[in-house]
Amino acid sequence: MTRALARDAALRARAARVVPGGMYGHLNAMQLPAGFPQFFERAEGCRVWDVDGNEYLDLMCSFGPVVLGHRHPAVEAAAAKQATTGDCLNGPSPAFVELAERLVDTVDHADWAMFQKNGTDATTLCLTIARAATGRRKILTAHGSYHGAAPWCTPIPGGVTDEDRVNLLPFVYNDLESAAAAAAQAGGDLAGIIVCPHKHDVFVDQELVDPDFARGLRRLCNERGAALILDEVRTGFRIAPGGSWEGLGVAPDLSAWSKALGNGHPIAAVLGGEPLREAATRVFATGSFWFSAVPMVAALATLETLRREKALERMREAGTALRQGLAAQAASHGFKLRQTGPEVMPMVLFDDDPGFTNGRAWCAAAVRRGVYVHPFHNWFLCAAHDADAIRSVLERTDEAFGEVRRGQ
Amino acid sequence: MTRALARDAALRARAARVVPGGMYGHLNAMQLPAGFPQFFERAEGCRVWDVDGNEYLDLMCSFGPVVLGHRHPAVEAAAAKQATTGDCLNGPSPAFVELAERLVDTVDHADWAMFQKNGTDATTLCLTIARAATGRRKILTAHGSYHGAAPWCTPIPGGVTDEDRVNLLPFVYNDLESAAAAAAQAGGDLAGIIVCPHKHDVFVDQELVDPDFARGLRRLCNERGAALILDEVRTGFRIAPGGSWEGLGVAPDLSAWSKALGNGHPIAAVLGGEPLREAATRVFATGSFWFSAVPMVAALATLETLRREKALERMREAGTALRQGLAAQAASHGFKLRQTGPEVMPMVLFDDDPGFTNGRAWCAAAVRRGVYVHPFHNWFLCAAHDADAIRSVLERTDEAFGEVRRGQ
Repeated sequence: MTRALARDAALRARAARVVPGGMYGHLNAMQLPAGFPQFFERAEGCRVWDVDGNEYLDLMCSFGPVVLGHRHPAVEAAAAKQATTGDCLNGPSPAFVELAERLVDTVDHADWAMFQKNGTDATTLCLTIARAATGRRKILTAHGSYHGAAPWCTPIPGGVTDEDRVNLLPFVYNDLESAAAAAAQAGGDLAGIIVCPHKHDVFVDQELVDPDFARGLRRLCNERGAALILDEVRTGFRIAPGGSWEGLGVAPDLSAWSKALGNGHPIAAVLGGEPLREAATRVFATGSFWFSAVPMVAALATLETLRREKALERMREAGTALRQGLAAQAASHGFKLRQTGPEVMPMVLFDDDPGFTNGRAWCAAAVRRGVYVHPFHNWFLCAAHDADAIRSVLERTDEAFGEVRRGQ
Repeated sequence: MTRALARDAALRARAARVVPGGMYGHLNAMQLPAGFPQFFERAEGCRVWDVDGNEYLDLMCSFGPVVLGHRHPAVEAAAAKQATTGDCLNGPSPAFVELAERLVDTVDHADWAMFQKNGTDATTLCLTIARAATGRRKILTAHGSYHGAAPWCTPIPGGVTDEDRVNLLPFVYNDLESAAAAAAQAGGDLAGIIVCPHKHDVFVDQELVDPDFARGLRRLCNERGAALILDEVRTGFRIAPGGSWEGLGVAPDLSAWSKALGNGHPIAAVLGGEPLREAATRVFATGSFWFSAVPMVAALATLETLRREKALERMREAGTALRQGLAAQAASHGFKLRQTGPEVMPMVLFDDDPGFTNGRAWCAAAVRRGVYVHPFHNWFLCAAHDADAIRSVLERTDEAFGEVRRGQ
């Protein structure tokens, strides 16, 4: 049960000298219990190894980008081949066109595509296109929803001005009345509504979308000539191939994608419908690496492999087995567990657990046993989580429940 | 002189259906004369090939990222090796720490580093840190300077609100009085001044920085407790190893870097001095791919190769030979040419050339002869531009001058 983390500790000490606070952002292990590694060496399928050589069954999948499994052979072969010819050039490669065509074919509401690097690039560009289309300023956002790390949307207000957010109006997820009230407040200045396919805020239970809420947002946008923007950055290509709301029959005007699109390769996309196409030509959107060929080739291979390997169904099966196993284990150890959201990106929280005391202790116990999980962020399944992997995860999580029970 | 561009045309037609306007951003060939290719297939050293197999001596270097030459063997070998172990993981690799240490060692004013993907991420983060440090809002920016493609800085106003820019105050590059006046207007609300190491705006002559102007900005920031932010995104690692103002002895508080840092691999960085470290811990900065290992390994290899191969000196020699050659050719053909800015990133404009008529014709003639240049954006030299390459460029540009002369 004792694992060496000496190299990790040495790297942390060095980082403390040359990085503010020693680390930043969502991968900062200082927000996690002791025993979590900060630095990683390698990965394969559903397994990762830290810099001290400790192996983990990975249930975070790099917080979403890894959807087929780490270093999927088909994706890596395509990327490596492209890298031997060209990546960042004076213009895009043919893969730019092929990927735009593939996405337009794949995602129901999409008639066109634009590519970026970060999820934040994509969500921000959606807002800008909605404003260009409408000539209006106000955007409705759900209270607590994460849409990226730019000043208009970052969850931490350091360095953010009031003016960065003066054109945002909050509503409550799944509360159509609150959205209608915010739209009324925006009046004739409503440019759009940005919303996640389901509520997946950090620290709290996930909520699947109420279909009436989704339809109501669509109607609100239609009535007011505003753009409905679906933020698929975290959900995209994990829930449904044609968009997370395809089953509801609710089509957004614009959608933002990133994370899983390139199975770890850096790429983001904005997809839009015909009515927004002209507005999209009037915004300035560019970046030094936005046209690079390697991530586009990786994305094409990812989309093709997702389809060919029936990855979404397999992920859902694995997620269901994991959920059922964890529920049974929790009950047998006398814990009440809340497992919310889609099976492929579960949020797992303990009942009656102020300060996430049990959750953190359980995650620490799991990590010591080689299962990488998170105490207050949703997890991510990937297609490399086969039945053996889930069985192995559950053997270790059962011990983790036992350890927390004994420690109480 | 006739080159096939059939595959390029076919890809453009397909792109027109699935991309707004057929293309967007700084690599959009529709803003260039006929005969410029839009789509590229491969690259090697200082040469690129379009999708129809036409070869070009590349004087744009992907608009800056390529500084050692395309697909430099040392960089690509390091990147490929890292890709076989891990890239986008649940935390950074050791290269994260090594790169931060290397940058702190290399860049004079830097005591710490943070990494991103886009140049825009870095400039935006600098503003946010300056605001967090000062608790103030106003930022001075030079009229016409490019600092990225976010709503606060994009050069095209589609979809941008007044509020996105209400906290910016303009000054004139190299005009200290105008900066002092803008600072006075900001009063007690001045958070920082962002400035490029030299003026490299699109469409106009470049201007080297007046040392008194640089020192004056430093003094202004000192007097008012504001942060001096140097935007090195376009200049970084091409002008001077320790920062473009190291020769002036003017140290910024924060600097933004990207483009050349990874020789084409997607990475950006913010570097800062000790006094801003604490503020940097209070801003939320993150992205799905900001901790990926491959571009960090590529950046380490780039920095090492720049040093080992004395790349900056060699680029400067090549740029000087190019400048002298073009000046002689222009004179011999009866043209007045304005070649401004550093030799390694020259702006080349024709005198008396409204609408860039001669410039566009000359660039088109150069591209037809296999020299890729730009009529209204500065060019970029790279370390792969050896004497043979420059000689070959000059043979073709001489013919291009002749063609433009005959066409007048």
